[in-house]
Amino acid sequence: MSRQSPARQHTLHTLETPCLVLDAERMERNIRRLRERLAELGPSLRPHLKTAKSVEVASRVMTSDAGPATVSTLKEAEQFAAAGVHDLIYAVGIAPGSKLERVAALRAGGTELSIILDTVEQAQFVAEACRNSGDAIPVLIEIDCDGHRSGVRPEDSLTLLEIGRTLHQGGTELRGVLTHAGGSYAARGAAALERCAEEERAAAVKAAETLREAGLPCPVVSVGSTPTAHFARDLAGVTEVRAGVFVFFDLVMAGIGVCTLDDIALSVLATVIGHQPEKGWILVDAGWMALSRDRGTAKQDVDQGYGLVCDINGKPYGDLIVADANQEHGVLAMRNGADSALPDLPIGTRVRILPNHACATGAQHDRYHVVRTGSETVDAEWPRFGGW
Amino acid sequence: MSRQSPARQHTLHTLETPCLVLDAERMERNIRRLRERLAELGPSLRPHLKTAKSVEVASRVMTSDAGPATVSTLKEAEQFAAAGVHDLIYAVGIAPGSKLERVAALRAGGTELSIILDTVEQAQFVAEACRNSGDAIPVLIEIDCDGHRSGVRPEDSLTLLEIGRTLHQGGTELRGVLTHAGGSYAARGAAALERCAEEERAAAVKAAETLREAGLPCPVVSVGSTPTAHFARDLAGVTEVRAGVFVFFDLVMAGIGVCTLDDIALSVLATVIGHQPEKGWILVDAGWMALSRDRGTAKQDVDQGYGLVCDINGKPYGDLIVADANQEHGVLAMRNGADSALPDLPIGTRVRILPNHACATGAQHDRYHVVRTGSETVDAEWPRFGGW
Repeated sequence: MSRQSPARQHTLHTLETPCLVLDAERMERNIRRLRERLAELGPSLRPHLKTAKSVEVASRVMTSDAGPATVSTLKEAEQFAAAGVHDLIYAVGIAPGSKLERVAALRAGGTELSIILDTVEQAQFVAEACRNSGDAIPVLIEIDCDGHRSGVRPEDSLTLLEIGRTLHQGGTELRGVLTHAGGSYAARGAAALERCAEEERAAAVKAAETLREAGLPCPVVSVGSTPTAHFARDLAGVTEVRAGVFVFFDLVMAGIGVCTLDDIALSVLATVIGHQPEKGWILVDAGWMALSRDRGTAKQDVDQGYGLVCDINGKPYGDLIVADANQEHGVLAMRNGADSALPDLPIGTRVRILPNHACATGAQHDRYHVVRTGSETVDAEWPRFGGW
Repeated sequence: MSRQSPARQHTLHTLETPCLVLDAERMERNIRRLRERLAELGPSLRPHLKTAKSVEVASRVMTSDAGPATVSTLKEAEQFAAAGVHDLIYAVGIAPGSKLERVAALRAGGTELSIILDTVEQAQFVAEACRNSGDAIPVLIEIDCDGHRSGVRPEDSLTLLEIGRTLHQGGTELRGVLTHAGGSYAARGAAALERCAEEERAAAVKAAETLREAGLPCPVVSVGSTPTAHFARDLAGVTEVRAGVFVFFDLVMAGIGVCTLDDIALSVLATVIGHQPEKGWILVDAGWMALSRDRGTAKQDVDQGYGLVCDINGKPYGDLIVADANQEHGVLAMRNGADSALPDLPIGTRVRILPNHACATGAQHDRYHVVRTGSETVDAEWPRFGGW
């Protein structure tokens, strides 16, 4: 599925900057790592493709070209379905109207697309649509395992059962429960991450048991986030794990201890365009448009600014970070203002910037330039898409 | 230049969400306001098209279809040149290699494209390229008026004159000086903004005088930022003003007092997808992917979260803001947690979210859905582009 650059063989010295570079060797290693973990623990992997938004990356991270996989937009569902992925969960609460119509159209086209919801109101309009169409859409009830966003609390049996019955008796297929430990992104260290993973598992399993004890079906118990997927010690009762950013990793994940800097597969290639020696600044042509406005490390122990700066081969220059960013300017400076250690980077020098958040930085670009670790040769160009 | 939606006449009730909505009446009013100011003050307007990235918006904001205009990327220069804009400044410090080659290619195609720089090193490689090609590229020396980013300090005559002579004697066309009062984004209130505008003017004029006194040409004195363009009381010595975000305005501009909420022409249309009544939260399908990660109001007197929430006609619900955002989820809550005032927005309700920063939010979308103030009818769909 790889597409070679058609016109010329690019290197990291000839690409237009700023642009997105993907170290495919690191990516393959990250994928193997999670697969091996899950092979030991039992559940299957349903990777979240919202991070990659690329058919080429998807084909490498999924266990088969047909899925299973998770998406965050119907655009992703449509793009991946067109590329032959037939088993998908749209993991954002369903809305009435055109979203439900697009789900129906994808299903009519042969894609096994499931949806999620967390209110009786949603269960009612989905059930009504299923009765009208005769297509029993598979639905997972979203469970709130840590209070971070959406979902039914696992102890709220009343709501859970009302939603479950509305779905099961109303004409949909009650497929199971789904939860996401988004709170784990704020955890630090192995013990805290293990606790998040166990809370996530326990919440989903408890909700599944509530449904089953009431005679409702619940074949699927779906959990997942990159931190909890890597720190779960036991996934008893869980049938599948969703995770997305594990494919690339990023500085936020390194900051909470899920990966090392050496695991981060994504970087932004940039060119030095100026110096402000009195201030200890080096200016590059990658601002927040190329890096994103994500400041996910701002509240971590090590604030990486808008990204950690590496040489063209991907080796960090110690504490050189993108200290500030305008639309098309990045301001490089030593962390904590240690000017003396500022490397000598003449105008025209190319650097690679590790992102705070791979999902956000990736989204600012329309393709990946694929390299091997330490190589300057661009082996392939993989398109990525955006939008809804 | 407007392109009507081909398939069907959309309304704000039928568009896919999240998507970008542009109130063309507010935009036209914003454009008129700055034009009228500059007509009184004297300098010409060279709008910055980095905010709009749209041929249709550009045609409305420029004083002629051929320009003049300012761009922040060579992709913008190429796109606008292809649409007939022939007078452009690429207002980011030039790098050697492919960037200079793309400038040369655009100029060879008939576009009057100028570049900027702030080091002797850059002046040398640009002069060398001009001697080799025989094309005297027009160059503006970037001046640092407030220490916020790049440029030569206006009092640093030595560097200024060395750059000026390298350019003028080396084979380029020394066109003038350019500065941008980026520091004005952190100012508050009319008096502070007037001071920023005067500092910006004085820095550019002082640098121009230094060059002229040494016998160097300096026909162009270019200044500009949206706050200073609106608060300058006098622009003596300035020949042109650049500004970009004034076309749409945003919450950051409202926060510093350059516009009111009623002037903000850009919003993100979103759909309610869930409720967490115990927490006082309403969930919508516009997360940071649709709103951007920009938190530009975080340090202002009124923190607008990830955006201020309005009804479908663009009227704010008092203090309802996007208090938090995940990739495809926005969490609406009352500012300061005043749950009692939370409006009743059933699942499926559509809202419009005013952005912190129009440049960042716009960049997350590939088109504008154009409406008139208060109307739900979508009159046109204008494409926008991204990339470099």
